[in-house]
Amino acid sequence: MLFGVDIGGSHIRVGRVVAERVVQRTEKAVGKSPDTVAQQIASALAELGASGTVHLGIGCAGRICPQTGKVLFSPNLGWRDVDLAAEVERATQKTGLQLLVTMENDVNAAVWGEFRCGAGKGKRNIAAVFVGTGIGGGLVIEGKLVRGASGGGAEVGHAPFAAGGARCVCGRRGCFEAYAGGWAVEAHYEKMTGKRLKASEIWTRRREDPSAAKVWRQAIEALAHLLLTLSAIVDVEMVVLGGGIVERCEGLADEVASAYRDLVGDGWRAADVAIAKLTRDATLVGAALLAL
Amino acid sequence: MLFGVDIGGSHIRVGRVVAERVVQRTEKAVGKSPDTVAQQIASALAELGASGTVHLGIGCAGRICPQTGKVLFSPNLGWRDVDLAAEVERATQKTGLQLLVTMENDVNAAVWGEFRCGAGKGKRNIAAVFVGTGIGGGLVIEGKLVRGASGGGAEVGHAPFAAGGARCVCGRRGCFEAYAGGWAVEAHYEKMTGKRLKASEIWTRRREDPSAAKVWRQAIEALAHLLLTLSAIVDVEMVVLGGGIVERCEGLADEVASAYRDLVGDGWRAADVAIAKLTRDATLVGAALLAL
Repeated sequence: MLFGVDIGGSHIRVGRVVAERVVQRTEKAVGKSPDTVAQQIASALAELGASGTVHLGIGCAGRICPQTGKVLFSPNLGWRDVDLAAEVERATQKTGLQLLVTMENDVNAAVWGEFRCGAGKGKRNIAAVFVGTGIGGGLVIEGKLVRGASGGGAEVGHAPFAAGGARCVCGRRGCFEAYAGGWAVEAHYEKMTGKRLKASEIWTRRREDPSAAKVWRQAIEALAHLLLTLSAIVDVEMVVLGGGIVERCEGLADEVASAYRDLVGDGWRAADVAIAKLTRDATLVGAALLAL
Repeated sequence: MLFGVDIGGSHIRVGRVVAERVVQRTEKAVGKSPDTVAQQIASALAELGASGTVHLGIGCAGRICPQTGKVLFSPNLGWRDVDLAAEVERATQKTGLQLLVTMENDVNAAVWGEFRCGAGKGKRNIAAVFVGTGIGGGLVIEGKLVRGASGGGAEVGHAPFAAGGARCVCGRRGCFEAYAGGWAVEAHYEKMTGKRLKASEIWTRRREDPSAAKVWRQAIEALAHLLLTLSAIVDVEMVVLGGGIVERCEGLADEVASAYRDLVGDGWRAADVAIAKLTRDATLVGAALLAL
């Protein structure tokens, strides 16, 4: 049986995956300590009727060691050097399950999900950009997930957009995320207007509110340049755009795609731009498929 | 026997490679037509004593089809859709040689050379940035050369540095190359001073000439941001800096490395920065090693 787990900063989702689809799932607020989370996974597996040999893919926020699968550092969870796979094995010891656990960074797992059975299905080379509060993403090159040398995966949101530009939450300046991440759109808008609105609300107001229009114009410009960067550096066939902000802001992906194609210009091949298909299931499904 | 060929816009070099080194070589001005070039390769092979089974790797400026090995388009040579391997086989038909030809983009071949037996030897993930008149480069990820979806390889010089910035020879604006390629350094300096000097001469004058200092400060900033882009997007262990400008401008690589480390900042792992080792042999050696 095949199961996927998505551990984010606030939630934990466990689902059974059959034929690349989630057929059953549970969702809870995520526990604080690794052994609580391992217990949550063990009870979810029982609840979902796991038995016999279980392939379990866990997508977890943070940096995962490509060799050992340990969670090296997860700022969202406050974990350092955690062997979650071992904890889950301990927590399921008396159940008689034969567990085969695979750990992956949650964003990498989501990229893999989109590659295997989402918008990128059938391609060999894709990049994915997920725009939410922050900007994450990743690469699949020649059918392989790019994990990078230190297990951080692709930090596409923290590549530079504007030298010496806006201060980013990562401590650097001018990152793509500092212009187009949800937090940045909201912060720039608040600075201009004194009003605190959600990025998607700012999007909705952009026709009548010049500040909203300006903030989003800047964000779209940043995202279009991020797509250009990805296609110049790795020449992917497709860039998949996803994440909560892309889902909630109708038409955003099209505007980014159009601005990107304008930037690419004549005589160059632009990558296809597609909208992510798996939305909230991407990490869960991708992690499960990585465990097979 | 193992041979490598480097076909640039002006030269053709053929060399015999033994134990990752060029032991014998010829160099000529490159012919115009594919069959002239094929003849040049055939005579070079005879001159260098080729016999029996010959593994021949050809690094050629332009876009090479990853499937067929054809030269899809080479602006420098003025070629479109050329099957050079077939031409070389024809030109050597009566020699009794058993030819096994592999074609690769010249910059990709050079990246591979640095990876296999140059500055990147022993690493698994590297990026290379070659600064000459233009800026080329490429990626090796998990020990594999990244060719990209359309055979252009990594166009690192044409990733964006400054949105809407300086006009580039590629037709776009704000490319890294438009700030740090040799032609750009020379053009910016000429615009400021009215004087036409070589990029390496401008480098030498930068202590006493404020315009020279300014132009190179800008170029170093662009190169440092290019390294940051590469390490954020693909998390490589090492970036190899090479090319004629890096070779001729003493101290440039160190200044770029230092500016890059400043940009990376605390709490992030900076990639190692190394200077290319194979210099003018990189394409020849890399192409040969790809043919094995």
